[in-house]
Amino acid sequence: MHPFLADCRARLAFDLLSHTWNAVVLWALRDGPGRPVELRQQIGGISSKVLNETLRRLQFNGLVDRRAHPGSPPRVEYELTALGRTLLAPTDAFGAWAYEHGDEVMAAQDAARGKADQP
Amino acid sequence: MHPFLADCRARLAFDLLSHTWNAVVLWALRDGPGRPVELRQQIGGISSKVLNETLRRLQFNGLVDRRAHPGSPPRVEYELTALGRTLLAPTDAFGAWAYEHGDEVMAAQDAARGKADQP
Repeated sequence: MHPFLADCRARLAFDLLSHTWNAVVLWALRDGPGRPVELRQQIGGISSKVLNETLRRLQFNGLVDRRAHPGSPPRVEYELTALGRTLLAPTDAFGAWAYEHGDEVMAAQDAARGKADQP
Repeated sequence: MHPFLADCRARLAFDLLSHTWNAVVLWALRDGPGRPVELRQQIGGISSKVLNETLRRLQFNGLVDRRAHPGSPPRVEYELTALGRTLLAPTDAFGAWAYEHGDEVMAAQDAARGKADQP
């Protein structure tokens, strides 16, 4: 049996992508640290609550670091850890697949819905 | 803005991985068609119900085909479509990442849990 199926590390890793926003936020941090307000602008369509939950999840998994800079008000930034950076390449491979084949998936969904509508 | 963040095709693709079992079942079919009973043996730890839901989801997204062979009882097999096969490489890239870095993720989780337990 291929280790992929039996190995709980692999399942754990796929669980990381089980939250779509994890990959999106990870990708948004690829060029350097970002403040939550910047990340929200960059990503679009993510609420403050969901962004915070996502950042906390990424932090819990060791993929993102939180930095609080002193000041008034204190400035909080998030950045990828070394471990988080290693996830960029496979995430990019998957994003590239989506870019190339996303239309085919949507066409298949439309076709499946059409079939279901037939009497 | 990078298309990855703005493009709904990318989000759609990541939604595909939002069910961990999608990637696992896809991977289990990489060497050829499989009957549900074989897939369950190969994967381990997946219920009949969850396997069927996963196969239906993959079929809905155009990644898997269902073939019913006549006979008594009829034999049902599932196999990857051409589109489904294109997803093997990025899935493998991600599985390889998990194999290499899964321990680090688990260590980070343990460390985060330890911090939370401190008074």
